[in-house]
Amino acid sequence: MERRQTAFLFDLDGTLVDSVYQHVLAWHEALEAEGINLSVWRIHRKIGMSGGLFTNMLLRETGGSALDPERAERLQKRHAESYGRRSKEIRPLPGAKELLAYLTGEGIPWTIATSGRMATARPTLDTLGVDPDKVPVVTRDQVKYAKPDPDLFLAAAARLGVAIEDSYVVGDSVWDILAARRARALGVGVLSGGYGEAELERAGAYRVYEDPLALLNHIDEVGGRR
Amino acid sequence: MERRQTAFLFDLDGTLVDSVYQHVLAWHEALEAEGINLSVWRIHRKIGMSGGLFTNMLLRETGGSALDPERAERLQKRHAESYGRRSKEIRPLPGAKELLAYLTGEGIPWTIATSGRMATARPTLDTLGVDPDKVPVVTRDQVKYAKPDPDLFLAAAARLGVAIEDSYVVGDSVWDILAARRARALGVGVLSGGYGEAELERAGAYRVYEDPLALLNHIDEVGGRR
Repeated sequence: MERRQTAFLFDLDGTLVDSVYQHVLAWHEALEAEGINLSVWRIHRKIGMSGGLFTNMLLRETGGSALDPERAERLQKRHAESYGRRSKEIRPLPGAKELLAYLTGEGIPWTIATSGRMATARPTLDTLGVDPDKVPVVTRDQVKYAKPDPDLFLAAAARLGVAIEDSYVVGDSVWDILAARRARALGVGVLSGGYGEAELERAGAYRVYEDPLALLNHIDEVGGRR
Repeated sequence: MERRQTAFLFDLDGTLVDSVYQHVLAWHEALEAEGINLSVWRIHRKIGMSGGLFTNMLLRETGGSALDPERAERLQKRHAESYGRRSKEIRPLPGAKELLAYLTGEGIPWTIATSGRMATARPTLDTLGVDPDKVPVVTRDQVKYAKPDPDLFLAAAARLGVAIEDSYVVGDSVWDILAARRARALGVGVLSGGYGEAELERAGAYRVYEDPLALLNHIDEVGGRR
């Protein structure tokens, strides 16, 4: 019997890079500039979805009406600017670079799938030392529906040439874990994006680790061997 | 039989005012300036304790040694400066002003007890329209031990002249809820500081609401009547 090849599909913000809180406050600033007042924790709990999706969702939940395309585009631009000003504070999460280097060294396929657009993802990938011209990173620009739809992770598995059923999706938000289930991948949670352990478990995470370093230290639990 | 008078003892940041994420990033910036690199989510999960306490705790957990008093003092100052720069973004949480006005109108005693010092609490109280010369606010400056020790809430009940056993402690962090239990008060959680519901329930919260507006809408559940 041929052994199945495990692969790892990573979310970016909050999973490999310590950038969630800056993204949250950048969305807060962008929304305020558009006259939309939402509590910061509500933005945090929706982040990981695409910006347009979570904004419309929050507007609906809080009784407002959906964004027109022009305003949605302006909001994306304001967010990218605000995040850019904050991006000097962004650091890779502990163990993130080491985890990716370990997988590469073991010949285990991996890539990154993010709900962000390449314009905001590129500086974040830079801090991680990942070159999107070499690693087949999948961004919001390349799929029609972002998380919690499964498309980003399905596209990532296809670009690696691996079966989604043999892939682990590693993410910090319930939207990653939900997208993993819908894609038929195994979801692994990390706490480094600021969600609680129970939220990730309830969403269906098979295992939850503190951060990429803890995942690397327990890599055998998720079949991370050649 | 005399009816017992319910009282409300509120935490400030994340409970009445939408300031947790700014505090978290201000601590992150202050710690980096002192050469201490900690992931942002770890700071978030410790916030609500006093700054000195949570810094020493995080240093111990991540293998470093405790701060000397001079460095701890410098850290507090750097945090206050960084938070000050971010404080123009701070807003009261939905329903916070209305909840306090309701309690005042009903003649139900309430006050605020915060692990922060008055220097950082004052601008936050300003956004809420609370004057610490009129409301007996208790800060870190007035007690020896901050949360999760019960001292802040015990001092707050004493200043109101109410029994702690008849008081509700309302807070967004597990440290508020733990301090409430140690003080023999009833703990009520709010999600507006970014903790998950399960975390607050596990810490012993009697009820958990989304934010002050949801608490006001369900005030009868926590005995908020004259």
